[in-house]
Amino acid sequence: MAAKPKIVVAGILDTKGNEIKYLAERVAAAGGEPTILELSVGREVGWADISIGEVIAETGHTKEQVFSLDRGKAADIIIEGAIKVVRKLYNTGKLDGIIAFGGSMGTSIATRAMQSLPVGVPKFMLTTMASGDVSPYVGTKDICLMYPIAEAGLNKVTRRILNNAAAAIVGMAQAPELGEAADKPLIGCMMFGVTTPCVLRAAKYFEDRGYDVIINHAVGSGGRSMEELIRDGFIVGMLDITTHEIGDYLLGGVLSAGPDRLTAAGERGIPQVIAPGGLDLINFGPKDTVPEKFLKETHLPGRGLYIHNPTVTCVGVSAEEAYLIGEHIAGKLNAAKGPTVLCVPMRGWGACDLPAPNKDLGWAGPGPGPVWAADPEKPEWSLRAGRFVEALRQNIDKNKENLEVLIVDKHLNEPEFADLMAELLEEMLNGKWQKGSHTDLPYVTSL
Amino acid sequence: MAAKPKIVVAGILDTKGNEIKYLAERVAAAGGEPTILELSVGREVGWADISIGEVIAETGHTKEQVFSLDRGKAADIIIEGAIKVVRKLYNTGKLDGIIAFGGSMGTSIATRAMQSLPVGVPKFMLTTMASGDVSPYVGTKDICLMYPIAEAGLNKVTRRILNNAAAAIVGMAQAPELGEAADKPLIGCMMFGVTTPCVLRAAKYFEDRGYDVIINHAVGSGGRSMEELIRDGFIVGMLDITTHEIGDYLLGGVLSAGPDRLTAAGERGIPQVIAPGGLDLINFGPKDTVPEKFLKETHLPGRGLYIHNPTVTCVGVSAEEAYLIGEHIAGKLNAAKGPTVLCVPMRGWGACDLPAPNKDLGWAGPGPGPVWAADPEKPEWSLRAGRFVEALRQNIDKNKENLEVLIVDKHLNEPEFADLMAELLEEMLNGKWQKGSHTDLPYVTSL
Repeated sequence: MAAKPKIVVAGILDTKGNEIKYLAERVAAAGGEPTILELSVGREVGWADISIGEVIAETGHTKEQVFSLDRGKAADIIIEGAIKVVRKLYNTGKLDGIIAFGGSMGTSIATRAMQSLPVGVPKFMLTTMASGDVSPYVGTKDICLMYPIAEAGLNKVTRRILNNAAAAIVGMAQAPELGEAADKPLIGCMMFGVTTPCVLRAAKYFEDRGYDVIINHAVGSGGRSMEELIRDGFIVGMLDITTHEIGDYLLGGVLSAGPDRLTAAGERGIPQVIAPGGLDLINFGPKDTVPEKFLKETHLPGRGLYIHNPTVTCVGVSAEEAYLIGEHIAGKLNAAKGPTVLCVPMRGWGACDLPAPNKDLGWAGPGPGPVWAADPEKPEWSLRAGRFVEALRQNIDKNKENLEVLIVDKHLNEPEFADLMAELLEEMLNGKWQKGSHTDLPYVTSL
Repeated sequence: MAAKPKIVVAGILDTKGNEIKYLAERVAAAGGEPTILELSVGREVGWADISIGEVIAETGHTKEQVFSLDRGKAADIIIEGAIKVVRKLYNTGKLDGIIAFGGSMGTSIATRAMQSLPVGVPKFMLTTMASGDVSPYVGTKDICLMYPIAEAGLNKVTRRILNNAAAAIVGMAQAPELGEAADKPLIGCMMFGVTTPCVLRAAKYFEDRGYDVIINHAVGSGGRSMEELIRDGFIVGMLDITTHEIGDYLLGGVLSAGPDRLTAAGERGIPQVIAPGGLDLINFGPKDTVPEKFLKETHLPGRGLYIHNPTVTCVGVSAEEAYLIGEHIAGKLNAAKGPTVLCVPMRGWGACDLPAPNKDLGWAGPGPGPVWAADPEKPEWSLRAGRFVEALRQNIDKNKENLEVLIVDKHLNEPEFADLMAELLEEMLNGKWQKGSHTDLPYVTSL
């Protein structure tokens, strides 16, 4: 808790200067120490604590250059500079919280700067855009949004709202310390409907042993948010059970988390145990949004169509696509610096990937799961899993002592598979894991 | 400022009980006095300060009845009860702020209750839905939204975020008092692009005389928000220059503010001066969203098409539609309890409603404004305005001493028209207005 918290008050001062000056006054009235950060796109006002000239200088440009660009390009440079400025302020103890006021342009710039700060650092955006689709502004961060009712101007209504917002950011920056509970080590875990049995069992394993588990939904934002939490140092180990965001990234599905999924844990060297949960499916919106190419191939092995509900349609990943995914994942894992095991369940990767109905594993039937395709040479194993393993065999660096692929003769949602992943991660966390661990089990083989 | 602010902590306790209990603890740690309000849809947990049974009892139902309904219907009843409970708490000094945590159902219920509280009362919603389209949750109120990153569960990440949120709501409820500036009397004003010259001139008139002016955009939410600000007692007088939300409501445009536009000032008896600004246009989205019926009639007088930009298309209001609008407005104004003047500018109602280009009035040309239609008998007047006045003549209650219609031989954006509206409202605010005022001007006649 900061006695007199340092609050950055940001905005486009050449159009919203009065409002931002007032906000800074109210931050001071609430007991904070405001620093006015200028994000002006048109001209420098001359009275900011940190001028737009200083912000732009961080990027190697001059303000004259930037003001002569069109507003969109100018904004991109100002965002780059603002991110550098706020991170520097935060890292040097000069930012305990940040608040901004803006219309659409000011909100775009200020929230991008806020998104660059770790979770838990107070962030507050007063925005006329707070009553619509706010996902570009929030991203995956804990940014408070508030609608100031009027477009602009200071009056009885907006003054009250700005006063409340100023008191909120100062209050947050003075939030009482958390007790011991907040210090429980935190396991990251990725979930989706089709992998729920595995996730809940593995998560409970850690909760029973004094850990906290954060479970994100693997819908794109969830994966991005998890990668950021890892980079921000919140996570001690990853139970990365559900990785289909990678398939959606490579194959054009809608739940992509971008190219950086499965990188943060490796870079920071934290232990990770990974499975191809959900990688049997590519995810789309309503059926008429599924690309023609896929709809034409539903007769091919594993390329089934699964209409989850009117707004979610899935198609099966083909064996050759599974090979591509395997190559991509191998590249990510070869770069990992910490203990890393990829467990491949050969009997299916989720509730839709089963040769016959099995309620415990998530598929009520009738008939086989909609994307199941058996390996002709070993029909209890999935064709897709076989090609995936082949890609790993060709691409995984087998000389690395911190990296192993385990071939597991189970379905992902069988309890033994969840236990295997959990036990491996626990060994890693206790510094006891080494390659070959658990290969004494009859259903586990090292690649 | 409340020494120990009373904070209502609300949510669906049968699924999010742990999170809400923790939130209440952190509210207490931050110096607030929490009251846990149960909004459970499935069962009563038994440990809330205000149980779901009490909430439901406010509606005349029993909890057994409600829990047996489908969740959507149950939620509607719980919303009704929650609104009654929070308003009662607020009115009896037992609510200085409200905070809730929820997924999609919990957010729907809690924010509806929050929306029933006046602007300025601290409202904070922690919601997994804060990274998408939030307009149904925010409505037209000053509700803070924050994304708790994880779907559910207490861990190092969510505890920090909940702790910040608790500190924010307590901080807001303890916000320092505002000085004199907040006590300037506030004029409400409605604006749209086509009425900007009139609005800015009339607003400046009041700002120069020690008033604050709040200018809302007449896009549906703006009008609804203004009606609420009036009901909540923020507004001393209405400069209702831009009223086309009524046309959109009656004729199927997209900027409707619902049936209650133009009612709050009348009910509270605050002075209002009104014009048909923008009522020459019905507003739609992209051109392909304009109903066929209108596109087929663009050859009719005044029924022109105006493509403002790729996402905003307008069509002209016909003379007969103007008659309907006149009837509707007459009904609203006959019910008004306070001083009320409707000023009708006969030479056009906005920038698109001009017989020839005139940059000062907002139409750069070439040619006449796209929705202009001259009255054949008096070609400098608009056909539409004539039919509108005819409807008023048939329907306005001429016996009321507080209500007058003025026929003005000007265009809405001419300075004399803005001055007329402003002077009339100022007279009303000073208690000096009476029927017939300003009819000594050569361009003003009483209906």
